[in-house]
Amino acid sequence: MSKLRVGLLGATGIAGQQFVHALAAHPWFELAAVAASERSAGKTLREALTDSGGALRWYAEGELPAAAAKLELTLADKLETDGLSLIFSAVESEPARLLEPLYAKTLPVLSAASAFRSEPDVPLILPQINPDHLAVVPVQQRNRGSRGFILPIPNCTTTGLAIALKPLADRFGLERVLLTSMQAVSGAGRSPGVAALDITDNLVPYIPGEEEKVARETGKILGKLDGGAIRAHRATVSCTCTRVAVLEGHTGAVFASLGQAAALPDVREALASYRCPEVDDLPSAPKAWIAVHDDPYRPQPRLDREAGGGMTTSVGRLRSDPALPHGLKLVWVSHNTKMGAAKGALLLAELCKTRGLLPA
Amino acid sequence: MSKLRVGLLGATGIAGQQFVHALAAHPWFELAAVAASERSAGKTLREALTDSGGALRWYAEGELPAAAAKLELTLADKLETDGLSLIFSAVESEPARLLEPLYAKTLPVLSAASAFRSEPDVPLILPQINPDHLAVVPVQQRNRGSRGFILPIPNCTTTGLAIALKPLADRFGLERVLLTSMQAVSGAGRSPGVAALDITDNLVPYIPGEEEKVARETGKILGKLDGGAIRAHRATVSCTCTRVAVLEGHTGAVFASLGQAAALPDVREALASYRCPEVDDLPSAPKAWIAVHDDPYRPQPRLDREAGGGMTTSVGRLRSDPALPHGLKLVWVSHNTKMGAAKGALLLAELCKTRGLLPA
Amino acid sequence: MSKLRVGLLGATGIAGQQFVHALAAHPWFELAAVAASERSAGKTLREALTDSGGALRWYAEGELPAAAAKLELTLADKLETDGLSLIFSAVESEPARLLEPLYAKTLPVLSAASAFRSEPDVPLILPQINPDHLAVVPVQQRNRGSRGFILPIPNCTTTGLAIALKPLADRFGLERVLLTSMQAVSGAGRSPGVAALDITDNLVPYIPGEEEKVARETGKILGKLDGGAIRAHRATVSCTCTRVAVLEGHTGAVFASLGQAAALPDVREALASYRCPEVDDLPSAPKAWIAVHDDPYRPQPRLDREAGGGMTTSVGRLRSDPALPHGLKLVWVSHNTKMGAAKGALLLAELCKTRGLLPA
Amino acid sequence: MSKLRVGLLGATGIAGQQFVHALAAHPWFELAAVAASERSAGKTLREALTDSGGALRWYAEGELPAAAAKLELTLADKLETDGLSLIFSAVESEPARLLEPLYAKTLPVLSAASAFRSEPDVPLILPQINPDHLAVVPVQQRNRGSRGFILPIPNCTTTGLAIALKPLADRFGLERVLLTSMQAVSGAGRSPGVAALDITDNLVPYIPGEEEKVARETGKILGKLDGGAIRAHRATVSCTCTRVAVLEGHTGAVFASLGQAAALPDVREALASYRCPEVDDLPSAPKAWIAVHDDPYRPQPRLDREAGGGMTTSVGRLRSDPALPHGLKLVWVSHNTKMGAAKGALLLAELCKTRGLLPA
Repeated sequence: MSKLRVGLLGATGIAGQQFVHALAAHPWFELAAVAASERSAGKTLREALTDSGGALRWYAEGELPAAAAKLELTLADKLETDGLSLIFSAVESEPARLLEPLYAKTLPVLSAASAFRSEPDVPLILPQINPDHLAVVPVQQRNRGSRGFILPIPNCTTTGLAIALKPLADRFGLERVLLTSMQAVSGAGRSPGVAALDITDNLVPYIPGEEEKVARETGKILGKLDGGAIRAHRATVSCTCTRVAVLEGHTGAVFASLGQAAALPDVREALASYRCPEVDDLPSAPKAWIAVHDDPYRPQPRLDREAGGGMTTSVGRLRSDPALPHGLKLVWVSHNTKMGAAKGALLLAELCKTRGLLPA
Repeated sequence: MSKLRVGLLGATGIAGQQFVHALAAHPWFELAAVAASERSAGKTLREALTDSGGALRWYAEGELPAAAAKLELTLADKLETDGLSLIFSAVESEPARLLEPLYAKTLPVLSAASAFRSEPDVPLILPQINPDHLAVVPVQQRNRGSRGFILPIPNCTTTGLAIALKPLADRFGLERVLLTSMQAVSGAGRSPGVAALDITDNLVPYIPGEEEKVARETGKILGKLDGGAIRAHRATVSCTCTRVAVLEGHTGAVFASLGQAAALPDVREALASYRCPEVDDLPSAPKAWIAVHDDPYRPQPRLDREAGGGMTTSVGRLRSDPALPHGLKLVWVSHNTKMGAAKGALLLAELCKTRGLLPA
Repeated sequence: MSKLRVGLLGATGIAGQQFVHALAAHPWFELAAVAASERSAGKTLREALTDSGGALRWYAEGELPAAAAKLELTLADKLETDGLSLIFSAVESEPARLLEPLYAKTLPVLSAASAFRSEPDVPLILPQINPDHLAVVPVQQRNRGSRGFILPIPNCTTTGLAIALKPLADRFGLERVLLTSMQAVSGAGRSPGVAALDITDNLVPYIPGEEEKVARETGKILGKLDGGAIRAHRATVSCTCTRVAVLEGHTGAVFASLGQAAALPDVREALASYRCPEVDDLPSAPKAWIAVHDDPYRPQPRLDREAGGGMTTSVGRLRSDPALPHGLKLVWVSHNTKMGAAKGALLLAELCKTRGLLPA
Repeated sequence: MSKLRVGLLGATGIAGQQFVHALAAHPWFELAAVAASERSAGKTLREALTDSGGALRWYAEGELPAAAAKLELTLADKLETDGLSLIFSAVESEPARLLEPLYAKTLPVLSAASAFRSEPDVPLILPQINPDHLAVVPVQQRNRGSRGFILPIPNCTTTGLAIALKPLADRFGLERVLLTSMQAVSGAGRSPGVAALDITDNLVPYIPGEEEKVARETGKILGKLDGGAIRAHRATVSCTCTRVAVLEGHTGAVFASLGQAAALPDVREALASYRCPEVDDLPSAPKAWIAVHDDPYRPQPRLDREAGGGMTTSVGRLRSDPALPHGLKLVWVSHNTKMGAAKGALLLAELCKTRGLLPA
């Protein structure tokens, strides 16, 4: 089978590099075109990543893939779309607002940027959680008169939280969620990212905009289709988002009110048995979407972030919460730059392909 | 004025060393007698802290104080109490159970151990929060037929939480507290303490026994005197306690239900204006018991732990919480080995002295 | 082909766990018998690694291998050797002194302990560096009247240094070596290992005994066979060994006097082209024994420790040294718990097998 | 005594903030005028340090000093010099090349930038090491036809090295120096500084330009006056400079060839007894310029960087080096942003004042 050719906006940034890495060995997709800002246009990806001192600024795992290294970067709004089936967007939110609609006229655009996440006709899809929300895509196309569409992936903290909550919301109902996140420094990117001077022997109790995003996006992902629109889930979500001295892997400490009494073994079973048949066998799917830990010292970001190739969410410390009605406490760990970023976007692209949403 | 002579149990451990450090320059107390385990008895403190390779195992700030270095260690149950006004106890909980009652027959014993914290006739006092609970001391003396008494200081995480909550409980009432703590490695001591292999690029979402201690002790400290007993505060306290890669300074992210609606400026004012006249001028008292931060990036443990010489609790990120009735969110930072340990115990000793509870 | 059955002394420690992990998927060897101290004897390996709170104390990569988990631990001196082809020893140096000769009466003992490294009839072999030193084995057997033999692997810092120096010593001669090592915390093991309180925001400029070991062992490994004995290499080796806040991967900064003038491209070529045909195709051999970096920011322990599955030594920052005759400066990174420990010992076992030194 | 009024170029950067902090309580100097780039000109220092989200970007110790906070920033080349006795320069090297000569026409300019360090008529002075090099100042004034002059402080790594070597060079002679530095992240500043993603669980074996600076500057500082010029010291200096996960405090591991045999007790004594009477009593002078440690685990950057208020250089691990003639090994720790930056520059200003080099 020949692979589908895909384009990538923002290929030189840390998020873009993760797409380059994730695409290098993908069985269905082939990176065929890359775009970046004016500073890099006209250079090969390798040249653009090489600094004035000769050092290669490659921050994703392993080595810069040889095939991608030779691709020549175009300007971000000048990608040649002929023959492409899909655009991945790894640009910042501001340029995304201009660039993504441009390409969505003709092609699916799967984006790591937050620009369109809160628009009513833009679903926010985690393939293993709410694939049915794809039903909003035709509405979006109709609204915007476009052949393509924009599908953003959620914020990386939302991703971990929504996956941990979904089986509970389905089985027991969900009324209230109080999250304290302890987020990895990779989530802040690299330019400038988190300075060692700020986080060594320290933590920072604030990440601008994050708490609002997590509250809003979690409600949308767990929401229900209603006509062609999404009605946000009834649960109130409240967060305190902090940054800690961890390289990769976000951790969330959750206090929740379920909709009914739930015995801990039933909670455990609901989490451990969670499946989503439509996507369970996609190339990027792990053996289990959720791994439940009984060892109270787990999950830990360094030990558990790579579970399922970074696609499994690890959940532990299940306890009843005496301070909330039908209260439950748990801790989750999710790989913010795999399930929460490029690999998560590839999983979404795989879902789109099996649904016939990608041009051949 | 000549200083009161005090003894110290467990002088060689990390908690004991912090007492040695804190006492070195104290205006009212003088360290006159030190005790430790069999391995150290008969040696001077300096000898006992010097390992076989000649290295000095001194872990508190600055240098080992010269006067203390020369004191000869006795066995923990053989401290000569003649002429002492007070015993500080820095031993583990298990030996504390035997040793502290022994000395409490004749002397006040102020302890960092948890052994007696939950006994009904043992108050748990933070001088700036509940000095009135000292009224339980005569009850304890009567119950136990002792001239002295045992006063434990609370767990270090409880200390930060209770100080941050007290002004709110007083002003607005308090119904529910949900705490996620991010605790420093110094809280685990040094033998073995937290291994670098376990915490570097990581966090650990569990500290054995901690969540139960914080819930129980917070209720007791915020509780009311009722006859000679303490009735725990009505608020339900629920915790998830985690360990992070921070050397000193515990951080707490709190979600709380107050007893009534409270505007954020009033919350801020209640915290910032908190005073406790009886103890505000004691030698170990800082200028302010609580420092309120408006910068959303604060408080941070590395930047704020030393506020007020480690005796000020820093509070910030005041926000309404939409998920709880009369909900409030905040973050606090407290120095776990100063306000939460030796210096906190010295503050308590100062209160005892002004109340006339110490033999001259 | 049926696998050779091997035994493991000290299976529960951190070094032992790395052997368990490395053996789990080995094509030639099968872990058939495990021994530990009295505290663990009679338990399965899983039971022995499970603490009183139910947490599994597994510190190697991935999960505890299922087959090994079920093996029952015997006392360290009671391993049933019938049917075994080899003993791996992961005990401390002191018990090694008693246990290893016991088993070496009949079997090859490959050891991570330092107990016998300096004995004249015990060669110190890095398979890719000095496989010819195996000629000392018959001398050892004759001397000690044993059918088996003891083969220790070198200290992990020596391993990185000796591999980086060997191609240079061969091609250009070597007169003087001055090493500053920056060693990972995993090298100190786990009980107690390096405390987070000691190494966070810090480094420690001393590791007891390390500098002497590196100097002595490097000379022996680079030495020449002379009759049945090893004559240490003429180069003087001097070290300052430090501990830094790195989890895995030792780094060495080397200043060396070569035996003759050497242009940097020739130095580079000597390192990059280094091969050892006898061992290049063994199961544990990486594609290259040495990877040379031209990017001046490399090698870095986090980025390069896993090169070649932890078996490749990364070398970079090649510069002439103006302060020494025929002076050369370089930096190397070596995986201290893979090439420098269990995986290195397996490579040595593979060499022994191809040489016919293992009973079938 | 009224204080001398001083100006500061580059007041908003991290180096500039350290000057603001160091000057806040200085007995002789008063910060009277501050300058920065166009972006900040016209704002008060507090306004310029406050970001768009309201957070104060103050990175030096303690709080932003109230008096300095109210100073209004001018453009860097528009500082009003009337009434000033001295300019401190904390700008980058490139702007320094233009700005410093401008102000040096009329005023002494003491600079943390490297722009002029290698010019023959610009001495590089550590007050406690080579105050006699001030004799070059009149030569510079004559050469450049200026009433003021430029005095750069050395690179922060050079500072630690030169202080540790000076007593040895004086007493025993010095032929060769091989330094491996392990440098703190604060040395890289903050925009962008060292990213947590680059240094956590890692070290970086390269700092652009650093090795050349240290070699050149050390020779110049230890050199001799010869007529009005400085003849560099004969010792060859060779370095490998690395960055480690330490916040503050550079560490150096030195191998040196002395000019003659030296017993270790004599080396120790030479270091411990080092004095420089002309500057020993200046306000910024510590009790001892060099603290010698006998504990082999010292010096450590976290434990020793604050010795003498950050102005004492700590030296330990004195050993003979078998690989070099008259070989000596040692380790030093120096506070890179105190003795190696702003506080070091203030010490130099104090020396200038006592020499009558500052206009009243």
